[in-house]
Amino acid sequence: MLYFLSDYTEGCHPKVLERLAETNLVSQPGYGEDIWSRAAAEKLRAACAMPEAEVFFLSGGTQANLVVISALLRRHEAVVAAETGHINVHEAGAIEFTGHKVIALPAHEGKLDAAELEAHMAAFYADATHAHMPFPGMVYISQPTELGTLYSRAELAALYDVCRRRDMPLFIDGARLGYGLTSPKCDMTLPELAALCDVFYIGGTKVGALCGEAVVFRPGVCPRGFVTMTKQQGAMLAKGRLLGVQFDALFTDGLYWEISRHAVAQAMRLRAAFVEKGCPLYADSPTNQQFVILTAEQKARLEKEAAFNVWAPLPDGRFAVRFVTSWATRPEDIDALRALL
Amino acid sequence: MLYFLSDYTEGCHPKVLERLAETNLVSQPGYGEDIWSRAAAEKLRAACAMPEAEVFFLSGGTQANLVVISALLRRHEAVVAAETGHINVHEAGAIEFTGHKVIALPAHEGKLDAAELEAHMAAFYADATHAHMPFPGMVYISQPTELGTLYSRAELAALYDVCRRRDMPLFIDGARLGYGLTSPKCDMTLPELAALCDVFYIGGTKVGALCGEAVVFRPGVCPRGFVTMTKQQGAMLAKGRLLGVQFDALFTDGLYWEISRHAVAQAMRLRAAFVEKGCPLYADSPTNQQFVILTAEQKARLEKEAAFNVWAPLPDGRFAVRFVTSWATRPEDIDALRALL
Amino acid sequence: MLYFLSDYTEGCHPKVLERLAETNLVSQPGYGEDIWSRAAAEKLRAACAMPEAEVFFLSGGTQANLVVISALLRRHEAVVAAETGHINVHEAGAIEFTGHKVIALPAHEGKLDAAELEAHMAAFYADATHAHMPFPGMVYISQPTELGTLYSRAELAALYDVCRRRDMPLFIDGARLGYGLTSPKCDMTLPELAALCDVFYIGGTKVGALCGEAVVFRPGVCPRGFVTMTKQQGAMLAKGRLLGVQFDALFTDGLYWEISRHAVAQAMRLRAAFVEKGCPLYADSPTNQQFVILTAEQKARLEKEAAFNVWAPLPDGRFAVRFVTSWATRPEDIDALRALL
Amino acid sequence: MLYFLSDYTEGCHPKVLERLAETNLVSQPGYGEDIWSRAAAEKLRAACAMPEAEVFFLSGGTQANLVVISALLRRHEAVVAAETGHINVHEAGAIEFTGHKVIALPAHEGKLDAAELEAHMAAFYADATHAHMPFPGMVYISQPTELGTLYSRAELAALYDVCRRRDMPLFIDGARLGYGLTSPKCDMTLPELAALCDVFYIGGTKVGALCGEAVVFRPGVCPRGFVTMTKQQGAMLAKGRLLGVQFDALFTDGLYWEISRHAVAQAMRLRAAFVEKGCPLYADSPTNQQFVILTAEQKARLEKEAAFNVWAPLPDGRFAVRFVTSWATRPEDIDALRALL
Repeated sequence: MLYFLSDYTEGCHPKVLERLAETNLVSQPGYGEDIWSRAAAEKLRAACAMPEAEVFFLSGGTQANLVVISALLRRHEAVVAAETGHINVHEAGAIEFTGHKVIALPAHEGKLDAAELEAHMAAFYADATHAHMPFPGMVYISQPTELGTLYSRAELAALYDVCRRRDMPLFIDGARLGYGLTSPKCDMTLPELAALCDVFYIGGTKVGALCGEAVVFRPGVCPRGFVTMTKQQGAMLAKGRLLGVQFDALFTDGLYWEISRHAVAQAMRLRAAFVEKGCPLYADSPTNQQFVILTAEQKARLEKEAAFNVWAPLPDGRFAVRFVTSWATRPEDIDALRALL
Repeated sequence: MLYFLSDYTEGCHPKVLERLAETNLVSQPGYGEDIWSRAAAEKLRAACAMPEAEVFFLSGGTQANLVVISALLRRHEAVVAAETGHINVHEAGAIEFTGHKVIALPAHEGKLDAAELEAHMAAFYADATHAHMPFPGMVYISQPTELGTLYSRAELAALYDVCRRRDMPLFIDGARLGYGLTSPKCDMTLPELAALCDVFYIGGTKVGALCGEAVVFRPGVCPRGFVTMTKQQGAMLAKGRLLGVQFDALFTDGLYWEISRHAVAQAMRLRAAFVEKGCPLYADSPTNQQFVILTAEQKARLEKEAAFNVWAPLPDGRFAVRFVTSWATRPEDIDALRALL
Repeated sequence: MLYFLSDYTEGCHPKVLERLAETNLVSQPGYGEDIWSRAAAEKLRAACAMPEAEVFFLSGGTQANLVVISALLRRHEAVVAAETGHINVHEAGAIEFTGHKVIALPAHEGKLDAAELEAHMAAFYADATHAHMPFPGMVYISQPTELGTLYSRAELAALYDVCRRRDMPLFIDGARLGYGLTSPKCDMTLPELAALCDVFYIGGTKVGALCGEAVVFRPGVCPRGFVTMTKQQGAMLAKGRLLGVQFDALFTDGLYWEISRHAVAQAMRLRAAFVEKGCPLYADSPTNQQFVILTAEQKARLEKEAAFNVWAPLPDGRFAVRFVTSWATRPEDIDALRALL
Repeated sequence: MLYFLSDYTEGCHPKVLERLAETNLVSQPGYGEDIWSRAAAEKLRAACAMPEAEVFFLSGGTQANLVVISALLRRHEAVVAAETGHINVHEAGAIEFTGHKVIALPAHEGKLDAAELEAHMAAFYADATHAHMPFPGMVYISQPTELGTLYSRAELAALYDVCRRRDMPLFIDGARLGYGLTSPKCDMTLPELAALCDVFYIGGTKVGALCGEAVVFRPGVCPRGFVTMTKQQGAMLAKGRLLGVQFDALFTDGLYWEISRHAVAQAMRLRAAFVEKGCPLYADSPTNQQFVILTAEQKARLEKEAAFNVWAPLPDGRFAVRFVTSWATRPEDIDALRALL
């Protein structure tokens, strides 16, 4: 079976596992105070060119989203997101469970539009009854988006500009950040992205780790008591080293970028194969998730040999489906899939 | 440095790591729907002699506590715990953050007393104003307790009897369950424990895994929507296999019990060494945590060569300190420590 | 100044005040256990033709909404509402503060459509990832809606039918229920409405009381512990009699209906005046709130002599404005306003 | 029947009712923006000698407690209270429902001790694991306490001193504040009390109003968005005038003090009667609640003619009972009760 279900269907990149094995018997304190967590944080600060950044390691994406958002919002504030945003759709109401509304704005290929955000803010403050409404207190986006699309540097700068003028932190969900930054269509570097937001996370789970996301706060943004809040939400691992060692491995000798580039390259080959075979694209993604449209017959045939995701049934009876690549995708898998088309 | 700081200061037992390596490249679905999670659940049901139990894997102890407790309590209910209970002291207000009070009853060497629980319940319902008070809705204990002590089978049966009469689920935090069940002082088996509560967890993080706790619900206890609740609290790993593989390894060929017995045996040797050298015990623990009393001078001397925990300063200037053993404790470490005393 | 700002800009109907004065010195227990609260509940059960209904008095609309919704939803469930629904827009994120998402469906003149609700439910359960999404757990509507419009009996029956098939309680916000049921366009009685939902409230604050809403649960719907939940949310008045006495007065000799009919009659006169003068209607409301469109010039002129609400600025420079009537609206006020047009 | 059940068993003081009647037909905006709410706030600022204080009116005591506490605490903080404090015992877990722990310290006749508070704080910060514990973020006391006792000015100053050094706001629950400040044993004025805390409320419900508590924030303490938070918790009345008019009446011509003095005077007569008849006092209260000890026989006899509260059954078979006076207590009621003893 060819496996394109997602980028979290295997264990971790062999070099990550190797590093876990090498460090396994070394005694170190728990709760993230180990040497690898410190070393990894240092490497991340360097990679972000932000030497005073505060770095924390959490286990997963939903956890990172809910811990960061509920730490930054005041009691009466809500988070603004694209209507297709992960926090608005696929996190089981996690943000609301912490007491905050998600204000959903229209998504354009998964992206928020800066002008629409500004219009929303202007309308909010112009409304005489706005004290009776949850205040838009921060903005959440993801890079790449749910549809694998990317904010350009100009788009991100425009959004961040609105956020700063409106005094709202901008938070970037980077569960698949590596695949965004190594995309041929990406026009920004990690330090450039870091400079265009207040807090973001660098995803590990979907980019070669067993688990783990690295939250990076611009200096001065991280609220007092953040460590206690992670404990309060069950997000602090006793063996914090599990996260530290993995991120240390990922950010040694460029492994994170190597993994990301590999997956994107295979995704581009996969996309080319579909296009060549006349399958229309459902979304124009330059990253490791590819969305194509299949007829019911094509879908049925492919399902016999390949594992992939049905994204949405279309009104005309066809299906939008998703194929995802990762470090574990072998070039020959793409060849094999291509042969099936 | 001799390391007795805790049972989460190394990676995982080598056999667990081996199993992670063996399975690393196998493609499997995420979110706990992999073959190892299923196999591990099956092995746990067998080990508990409870073939219809529902088993879920979560990342850590605080997470397991807050997810289970907030899933079982109704809106207006509180959880009863010993005043020294982990949820009442060291979880950063995690239970309260989910909206529920912790009702603290007196602790007797870390344990709740069944008669006191019954008296509390009787007084609660006798109070004419009890509709203005949070209802005691479930009971939380840990086995072993924070002080390494154990409930006897009779004590647990008495507690569970009160719980059933009062229609309150009984939940056992088993973060160190292995060390309890393999203690020479323990008079119950895992199936016996499973039969004397409604839900409990078998700790992995502190018993040889990198992370992971296995929550076991007696049939009929697990609330509808529990999986969604784990997602809602950021407690669902995309690579659920990380937990499944580790528990599969721990419950293959008795590894969990082997790890536990080893740590308890070393703890008993450590205890004997302290007693022999005339250091008084702070608590009478038959499990892998040993609490002894040191003078300031003894403490200062030992700290040069060994890592351990200061539990509490005592009024007379001495210190209660904690030494913990694990799978990673080598017999020669105990010898070396003994030589230092 | 002619006052059409809202239906809560005066005190209470004189007969309500009279009843407060008459009963003022009578000693009665607190917390709603007084004779008037009991009598009022009995009168409401009779008015609803639901002799086993459970009735509770709360202080205000947002309070009633958040207490009822958070009492009925399970931990992982969300409430479905029209996107224009009060809970989704003007309650400061009150529902989310209790931990639950508001799922907003399209509004048709303020109303939910039964077919769209069913389509939403079907799509939800058909989605393979729905366990990662908040479950639609109940439905919230208001009668009349935010725009003063009414559900017909057939529309309500269709909605309730979907709710019952999908096992979701239907909750009707009746903050202005009197104005709905006495509208010339209304085709249902109070007992008929009561029979087409699981819980609703009969608004007092906006229909002649100083404060107070009467929540009516169909038998078997009210969750165990509801009284404790009202206390837990600060919604229980020590002098519960304040609410009981007022509802007792409102439901004696048909005062509630008299107040409602009066306000609707004046609203119909007001509407006729605007229509006659050529002012277009912004919404077609048959109840006590009238929405008309004014030019900037008309608005500026009227504002000198009358108090009303700007509902929304329109793209063409005109304004949607709202005029509201109540028991306190004098027929001569309408005449005077008419003369101003 | 002689009625001593509580101070909320009648309506409101006749002068309050009169003022409600006088203002009933005046049209004014809702949500506390009416002229009386403004006038009352001004009168309260004057009474507190704090011209820049921020004043808000809420409906009841539990509501005031939960709204203020959850507005002032950060996410990871808890409120410190006496173990007998109302928020710890009789508010149905309201504080915890907003996500925060109540840290209970020993009560001395219902009061917190400054030295014990400081010792708690010192121990907290000395604990190496304190980042894993909820941070003590504010202190809650009541004046008078649950037992009717009073903090002296020196005691209050000592507590506030600890609070300021530890950077924790001090909040005083003044549900019965009038009865405290007019007690013959009270050594502080309202301005003095206001100067020895950060926020407090002046109770109306139990001191002559139908409902209402006036929250007074020292300048700079009230968090941004507080009005929105009151809406978010269902604590904002549409007819905010109901609270404004009542407090305006209570603080006109010293009515609040007159009511309070009357009740305390009657309580002192009642106390003298019990003492004279040889009934021991259960608590030494100089305010409007009197706690005495009755034998079962005395209790049974009195219950035939008088309504009062059983506070607690005593181990020796006797009962601690509570008698409460208010504006509605007639001097002849005390005479009658005395005759019964």
